[in-house]
Amino acid sequence: MMKILMNDKGKKFLIGTEDLHTEQGYIKQEEIASSSPGDVLKTHMGREFHVLEANINDYIQLMDRRCSIILPKDLGIITAYTGLGSGQQIVEAGTGAGAATIFLGNLVGENGHVFSYELREDFSQIAEKNVKGFGLENVTLKCQDVVEGIDEENVDLVFLDLPKPWEVVEQARDALKSGGYLAAYTPYIDQVKLLTRILKKRKFSDIKSVECLVREIEVKDKGVRPKTRMTGHTAYLTFGRKV
Amino acid sequence: MMKILMNDKGKKFLIGTEDLHTEQGYIKQEEIASSSPGDVLKTHMGREFHVLEANINDYIQLMDRRCSIILPKDLGIITAYTGLGSGQQIVEAGTGAGAATIFLGNLVGENGHVFSYELREDFSQIAEKNVKGFGLENVTLKCQDVVEGIDEENVDLVFLDLPKPWEVVEQARDALKSGGYLAAYTPYIDQVKLLTRILKKRKFSDIKSVECLVREIEVKDKGVRPKTRMTGHTAYLTFGRKV
Amino acid sequence: MMKILMNDKGKKFLIGTEDLHTEQGYIKQEEIASSSPGDVLKTHMGREFHVLEANINDYIQLMDRRCSIILPKDLGIITAYTGLGSGQQIVEAGTGAGAATIFLGNLVGENGHVFSYELREDFSQIAEKNVKGFGLENVTLKCQDVVEGIDEENVDLVFLDLPKPWEVVEQARDALKSGGYLAAYTPYIDQVKLLTRILKKRKFSDIKSVECLVREIEVKDKGVRPKTRMTGHTAYLTFGRKV
Amino acid sequence: MMKILMNDKGKKFLIGTEDLHTEQGYIKQEEIASSSPGDVLKTHMGREFHVLEANINDYIQLMDRRCSIILPKDLGIITAYTGLGSGQQIVEAGTGAGAATIFLGNLVGENGHVFSYELREDFSQIAEKNVKGFGLENVTLKCQDVVEGIDEENVDLVFLDLPKPWEVVEQARDALKSGGYLAAYTPYIDQVKLLTRILKKRKFSDIKSVECLVREIEVKDKGVRPKTRMTGHTAYLTFGRKV
Ligand SMILES: C[S@@+](CC[C@H](N)C(=O)[O-])C[C@H]1O[C@@H](n2cnc3c(N)ncnc32)[C@H](O)[C@@H]1O
Ligand SMILES: C[S@@+](CC[C@H](N)C(=O)[O-])C[C@H]1O[C@@H](n2cnc3c(N)ncnc32)[C@H](O)[C@@H]1O
Ligand SMILES: C[S@@+](CC[C@H](N)C(=O)[O-])C[C@H]1O[C@@H](n2cnc3c(N)ncnc32)[C@H](O)[C@@H]1O
Ligand SMILES: C[S@@+](CC[C@H](N)C(=O)[O-])C[C@H]1O[C@@H](n2cnc3c(N)ncnc32)[C@H](O)[C@@H]1O
Repeated sequence: MMKILMNDKGKKFLIGTEDLHTEQGYIKQEEIASSSPGDVLKTHMGREFHVLEANINDYIQLMDRRCSIILPKDLGIITAYTGLGSGQQIVEAGTGAGAATIFLGNLVGENGHVFSYELREDFSQIAEKNVKGFGLENVTLKCQDVVEGIDEENVDLVFLDLPKPWEVVEQARDALKSGGYLAAYTPYIDQVKLLTRILKKRKFSDIKSVECLVREIEVKDKGVRPKTRMTGHTAYLTFGRKV
Repeated sequence: MMKILMNDKGKKFLIGTEDLHTEQGYIKQEEIASSSPGDVLKTHMGREFHVLEANINDYIQLMDRRCSIILPKDLGIITAYTGLGSGQQIVEAGTGAGAATIFLGNLVGENGHVFSYELREDFSQIAEKNVKGFGLENVTLKCQDVVEGIDEENVDLVFLDLPKPWEVVEQARDALKSGGYLAAYTPYIDQVKLLTRILKKRKFSDIKSVECLVREIEVKDKGVRPKTRMTGHTAYLTFGRKV
Repeated sequence: MMKILMNDKGKKFLIGTEDLHTEQGYIKQEEIASSSPGDVLKTHMGREFHVLEANINDYIQLMDRRCSIILPKDLGIITAYTGLGSGQQIVEAGTGAGAATIFLGNLVGENGHVFSYELREDFSQIAEKNVKGFGLENVTLKCQDVVEGIDEENVDLVFLDLPKPWEVVEQARDALKSGGYLAAYTPYIDQVKLLTRILKKRKFSDIKSVECLVREIEVKDKGVRPKTRMTGHTAYLTFGRKV
Repeated sequence: MMKILMNDKGKKFLIGTEDLHTEQGYIKQEEIASSSPGDVLKTHMGREFHVLEANINDYIQLMDRRCSIILPKDLGIITAYTGLGSGQQIVEAGTGAGAATIFLGNLVGENGHVFSYELREDFSQIAEKNVKGFGLENVTLKCQDVVEGIDEENVDLVFLDLPKPWEVVEQARDALKSGGYLAAYTPYIDQVKLLTRILKKRKFSDIKSVECLVREIEVKDKGVRPKTRMTGHTAYLTFGRKV
């Protein structure tokens, strides 16, 4: 279990191995170490910080994210559309900083496994640190080009977040079990078009592409309304199923 | 593992204990029973049916759904926004036909558990059949009014899909562990408003309401375009976190 | 001025040269003829029908629409994004049944003019009837292929609703006044891409493509919520301006 | 006709009574005065500026806008849903800086008229300057509280952009001709609810509320995709029709 501190404005802080210094004062490391979720600690300036058990979103938000990461909304749609669950085997590429990796590792649990491929060694190392930091032991990071082949077999999902997912369709097909899914995250519609063509050619079934828009609602004393600004686009999600 | 048959148009069929009769001919029960995912069976009219391992979405689509069920998109957002994962403890109300129950049970796996409350005995029985049919052993169905109290403690998520979620906020608070989430699914904006007020009063943090729109993209030879019709609204999702 | 009748359920009826026969009884032609907007007429069964001055949306909804027509939302965006107003000169192609033609003719008024090109004589004739029926005298229908050339000059807007708008970019450029707009309505993203390339090549400025989603809100006693079903896509609107 | 200058990056400049000074050099007033749309002028640094005929969107973008103004998308929907056209009579409140006023004045033309009510004298004066600057002669600005009454009769549209439109429903009803529309722009869903109740009570027909989302599409060499950021909400538009 990982702890996290939250100040009275809802701002969150990861806990390291040193005293926590904030604009609202500091809290001693020993005090933090001996606290439990639900406790309230005070800074030397008397400001209250709540101790919470960190959840995965806290962690991903606060970890080292040197490359762009997938938003929760898209991870949620992938989970629901491919029927992800505890105990599944997943292949992912590329790892990036590991946001999706951690989400998927947390989801499949100790009876499941995530194998994540990444070309670049620097990203693979950041991801390593991030995955370890969250305490996951069911993740294998592979600094390999996924185009050259997928070592695993009989997996439930191959998830692709890389520029040319169509180059991996055949490898994915070989790695998937019957009924398993390929899911790809691609910002451009041109990528959707090309990938769909290859999925059809390789006889995937249930081919489908969607986009997901999440809009936040503001509930204020003056009234209720959607927020003025929203994310208009992250990427399209394309799915195919091996028959 | 549950098997499913799919014809050449992508239509899927649950497998019962009898021969499968379809418009494209029948397949004998023995033949189905001895088949494995990946096999192709032929009807007496020579039409091909693929054997697939049923996944959760196949199952929920085909099971007995006598009351309205939550769409995958909303279950996905709940999963991602509350950081759901393998091994978690979840309280749900009401069960309805059990679509959300099965999704959540599948997600938390054998180290986790779902406790689902339902007022009406008829729904609880349908849900029982559906949950059993999917083979889940980590679900406890309770034919009880959740307003009268939640028996569980220290749970990760209380998920509410019932008309007056604000009546359950205090009970949920007592049931949740520190850092755990309440999530509610409500079709009307008026419900969002009232629930938010009560969540604030009960000192929940990270209070947030969103709506999720999923739009399907058609990739045809003529070109690529979003589908003409889409689901414009299911419900708002409101989240709060116990500190 | 054109009159229209509306029953107590909000259903509307165009007035012809004969008695009006409805499921709720009939009303004599003479009675209708001598009525004024605001009057209430009764059928022989005693049901009340309101007399309204028909507006353009009533008319377009009720007229002969043998081909697919542009929705008001898209006509509204075209109007606002190109700064349409009274007195302007517009070239349109193709006419179809004339829905956009009538909208534009009504908008530019007697000091303005709409020149509308249509390949197919049958559509051109339906449009003729529809335009006349609405009483517009500022519209010229031309049964001509717009690709072969636009006769007009110095126009404010060239509006294209046909499959290959890029074939008309040069002709449109010649027809437009400096500062005038080309606007195109295309269902497929592939069309947007190709048209944009040609607009850039022909040195149009302010090139922009948008899509417009309108969602209806239901205000009921039970609460307020967006409608369950909505139109997810009609077409993309692409704009360019002649400098 | 009003002229405008545009540099090679698409940035636009209103023309005053003096030399134009920009970061790319200056252009003499006489040279500007004697230019015509379509001409290209050069700054003393040799940079090219195109002369365009200003259209209404250029003007509204560049004029003095001290209070928040309605976006074109919403003005477009109002136009299309109420069947606005040349020659109509419109009552508006409040004027604000006059963006909607100018749009509507331009639309109804010299045979139509816009009567715009504004409580605050400072806004009324800014609007006066803005309306004059655009050269409209069919607009009457009234520094009056619209709740106290509407002087006009038999108008086609009463458009309300003020916090409590329900206070004006009766006055609007008296001012409207049979078949005319009330349209209101309100950011909060609570306002929609209240207004709808009053419209029903006052026997308006065709009562409808919508929201309009416009998403821009980026067409780049790398591919086509919706923009990352978009406007998630401006306001709801509510319509009612006098029978
Ligand atoms: C956008 S990032 C992935 C981000 C990640 N999904 C997350 O949420 O944190 C894409 C990654 O794919 C990697 N990549 C690209 N092509 C690859 C290939 N052929 N094999 C393995 N990794 C690849 C890139 O180096 C990059 O780190
Ligand atoms: C819309 S259904 C739930 C559907 C379910 N989420 C699914 O996806 O299948 C709502 C259910 O809540 C139940 N319910 C309402 N109030 C309740 C209460 N106080 N305690 C337990 N169940 C309740 C109703 O009987 C109904 O079956
Ligand atoms: C979708 S319809 C237009 C509908 C119309 N905008 C409305 O709202 O009623 C397209 C029309 O364009 C016409 N068309 C296609 N190519 C053309 C061309 N090169 N010149 C003129 N008309 C053309 C077709 O015959 C068809 O009637
Ligand atoms: C948001 S602004 C209008 C902006 C305008 N629609 C535009 O697009 O530029 C609302 C205006 O309504 C005015 N107002 C509020 N209540 C009013 C009333 N009862 N009578 C007249 N004006 C009023 C305010 O002073 C304010 O200037």
